[in-house]
Amino acid sequence: MFIRNAWYVAAWADEVADTPLARRICGDAVVLFRDKQGKAAALIDMCCHRGAPLSIGKVTDLGIECGYHGLTFDCAGTCVRIPGQEQIPARARVRSFPLVEQDGFLWIWMGEAAKAGTSSIVRYPWHNDATNWPHKHTLYPVKGAAMLMVDNLMDLTHLGYVHTSTIGGNPMTHVEAKMDTVRTPLGIKFTRWMLNSVPPPTYVKASGFTGRIDRAQQFEFIAPGSIIQLSAADEAGAFKDGLPENCKLQFRLFHGLTPETETTCHYFWSTANGFRPNDPAATEQLFQEIAGAFMEDMAVVQGQQARLTELGEDALVDIVSDAARIHMRRVVDRLLAKEHQAMAAE
Amino acid sequence: MFIRNAWYVAAWADEVADTPLARRICGDAVVLFRDKQGKAAALIDMCCHRGAPLSIGKVTDLGIECGYHGLTFDCAGTCVRIPGQEQIPARARVRSFPLVEQDGFLWIWMGEAAKAGTSSIVRYPWHNDATNWPHKHTLYPVKGAAMLMVDNLMDLTHLGYVHTSTIGGNPMTHVEAKMDTVRTPLGIKFTRWMLNSVPPPTYVKASGFTGRIDRAQQFEFIAPGSIIQLSAADEAGAFKDGLPENCKLQFRLFHGLTPETETTCHYFWSTANGFRPNDPAATEQLFQEIAGAFMEDMAVVQGQQARLTELGEDALVDIVSDAARIHMRRVVDRLLAKEHQAMAAE
Amino acid sequence: MFIRNAWYVAAWADEVADTPLARRICGDAVVLFRDKQGKAAALIDMCCHRGAPLSIGKVTDLGIECGYHGLTFDCAGTCVRIPGQEQIPARARVRSFPLVEQDGFLWIWMGEAAKAGTSSIVRYPWHNDATNWPHKHTLYPVKGAAMLMVDNLMDLTHLGYVHTSTIGGNPMTHVEAKMDTVRTPLGIKFTRWMLNSVPPPTYVKASGFTGRIDRAQQFEFIAPGSIIQLSAADEAGAFKDGLPENCKLQFRLFHGLTPETETTCHYFWSTANGFRPNDPAATEQLFQEIAGAFMEDMAVVQGQQARLTELGEDALVDIVSDAARIHMRRVVDRLLAKEHQAMAAE
Repeated sequence: MFIRNAWYVAAWADEVADTPLARRICGDAVVLFRDKQGKAAALIDMCCHRGAPLSIGKVTDLGIECGYHGLTFDCAGTCVRIPGQEQIPARARVRSFPLVEQDGFLWIWMGEAAKAGTSSIVRYPWHNDATNWPHKHTLYPVKGAAMLMVDNLMDLTHLGYVHTSTIGGNPMTHVEAKMDTVRTPLGIKFTRWMLNSVPPPTYVKASGFTGRIDRAQQFEFIAPGSIIQLSAADEAGAFKDGLPENCKLQFRLFHGLTPETETTCHYFWSTANGFRPNDPAATEQLFQEIAGAFMEDMAVVQGQQARLTELGEDALVDIVSDAARIHMRRVVDRLLAKEHQAMAAE
Repeated sequence: MFIRNAWYVAAWADEVADTPLARRICGDAVVLFRDKQGKAAALIDMCCHRGAPLSIGKVTDLGIECGYHGLTFDCAGTCVRIPGQEQIPARARVRSFPLVEQDGFLWIWMGEAAKAGTSSIVRYPWHNDATNWPHKHTLYPVKGAAMLMVDNLMDLTHLGYVHTSTIGGNPMTHVEAKMDTVRTPLGIKFTRWMLNSVPPPTYVKASGFTGRIDRAQQFEFIAPGSIIQLSAADEAGAFKDGLPENCKLQFRLFHGLTPETETTCHYFWSTANGFRPNDPAATEQLFQEIAGAFMEDMAVVQGQQARLTELGEDALVDIVSDAARIHMRRVVDRLLAKEHQAMAAE
Repeated sequence: MFIRNAWYVAAWADEVADTPLARRICGDAVVLFRDKQGKAAALIDMCCHRGAPLSIGKVTDLGIECGYHGLTFDCAGTCVRIPGQEQIPARARVRSFPLVEQDGFLWIWMGEAAKAGTSSIVRYPWHNDATNWPHKHTLYPVKGAAMLMVDNLMDLTHLGYVHTSTIGGNPMTHVEAKMDTVRTPLGIKFTRWMLNSVPPPTYVKASGFTGRIDRAQQFEFIAPGSIIQLSAADEAGAFKDGLPENCKLQFRLFHGLTPETETTCHYFWSTANGFRPNDPAATEQLFQEIAGAFMEDMAVVQGQQARLTELGEDALVDIVSDAARIHMRRVVDRLLAKEHQAMAAE
């Protein structure tokens, strides 16, 4: 069960060019493509004639042409050509999904098209600021539910256990971090303070800290699947009046978790370098460090998914560090219930 | 659901020699073997003692010997030996399937043996005429239903989309081909005329055409799974009084589609060279060209099968070029219904 | 359906060291580990917090630490540490399984812990006698039910069909072997006599026999999954008064069949060299010969499992050589029924 009346990241904008791209989203087989004018579109990935995947076809001047018998569909899913036949029956169409290109993403709406207001799309302006926040991005295929990856990001005490060799550092630094939490209509935002702490290896690599540091992490979850992260650090003492505008070390991460199926997801993530923006090597190094750490997360979540699929969640026990995660889950459950109530009422 | 009271190609005759061959046909695990006299037989591939596959056994003077405890079965499935035991219980037998060797094929009957009249076996004499029609044959395993492969061959407008680089040529040549159709008791036969057309690359390779050609394709579908094809071409103008007895370019194809499971099939096919019968290189070249084209068909059909398995066929829309395909499907559905009525009445 | 109130081999004792080991037993995901004092333990392989497999964690001074958020469990499955939290809720525990280290094995009890009396554990002292019975052991993963492997060992007429090239020898030697059988409370014990017979290739290799031999095999099945084997051979005539205390050729095999799932099992086996105990090459050669033969058994059983999964056992026909196998199955069925009756009565 997924929230469907919401925007999910369907793809990085630069993933979709001339060639159609097949991707399963919220259980549906979708084909993403750009027409000859460059407009990106999303259709169900199945020709309405004989069921061939449209993703094995190609883009022509008229739209996407099926690779089996040549039927062609425009960005709205309307059939605009049937080879050998003048009249095109009204039934000859395939489902299209609202798709919006913004901030380097293609955002897709998997529910009722009539409700797809674009103002609710999460904004991430740092993707458009190559001068101050040069970034890199990728996509990890995860054999675990999207919500398990969100869980992972809502309880950072895992850093000291999952990421010992990379971004983690001392476990107790994370466990004992002071945390400020703000609940929002679509999620939760928290800041974790690790003042006067020992810098983890990646921080030392990035900014050459030699002594203790003040360190903070801000995470904002926005349903159904976006997490906006700011990590900042400076010499110990620098954060005594709160988080400064700029820090010696600062980087941003975007996490987009899009369900593929009930037990798998697409993990879209980017890293933006705000600490040495003129140094491409620093941008690359940041990306590589995070890439390694997220592989560690995937391994844990995939193991977790296997167990939960087999044994369920009923016997699990919440602990103190689950607070933000539990609130996040409540927001998501509430949205899901609301969506189902609205459907039942229609 | 398969038509079972009918003959299917079980194997090429030359596939079955000393060693038992396991093959699933219409959902059943079958073992094919030849006894020491060279007679081919088909049994259910499971020993009646402890259930081991007979296909891991070997052929002895008495029949096929189970590789586990040595029980031996003759071509009729009767147990003729139990090591260490004089008396053989009547229950000790395995199901046998009628099997006929003819025209280079082993034909199998998966239904009621009492109804297996051999006169209804499709004949293909060209396999026996190495002088005028030297041929090559093979078997492709397809992850798509047999009927989807038959569909493919009943709507040749796909040639211009699936086979652009091989046997296709210009799409509109196929879409606009004039078509003569004859309905037969067990299928349909059609001839497609592409007069004064540009030869596709394979035709130029085969017969060195330099200008436009008259081209024709005859396809006859005979239920449940045979398609007999003749392709012919000559200089433009040559077909003005119909198809001549012999053409500059002429070749025959046999297509045998045998269900393996509901969603997979065995594609037995052969190519016979009737244009340069004395030139083994031409026989080989024809085979290789078709081999490449059929790989393209398989890729499309496998994609189609995946979508149909997930989403069903109910929302699909027929188009004009589906006419022969639709008639073929009606014949098959009628045979299936008749078979089920007869079973219900018994 | 497995007998659960019984001891199974969970692992070779030397498989479990510092690193946790994941193993599925009787359908349950189990993690095996040793604490810092060297005591081996078995827990359900799922943290009670968020469901991560404990097997991706590590052993600390306190027990096994979850690799996700650091919860730690002792050998009894009690949570002894939750990072960031003083109080540990009573519900924070995972299931533990009785585990006993003995004779080179770790024996596990998958049923009601209260009934796990250790006196019923099968003893195999030869594993502790490196002087007279040096041994080697390993584990084969079998894609077939444990009971099919036990079946295999209860009907040795298969030797002449499955193992022709290795330990088999002439089929009729096995089929016609005279057999003494003793029924025991938890199984069956039989001795097969092949007097004045031609030695199989492995026997010739091991002891250099040049003429005919007297040969005997003793097999004792002890429910639920142990088989203790003694194979002995000497010059023809040597066994006229029964099996002597020592023979020119003598070796012992332990077979431990532990269900992994309903259709797969773990095959723990060892070979002990009692004929040239001072010759490590002979110990190795014996092991290698058996290793090859058991691969042959696995291939048959895996084929058999595939057929039985598809077609069931109802139509199978028992033969004379099934006698020991049938008795063994009755013992197992009786134990299973008794266990289920006791559960129903509680």
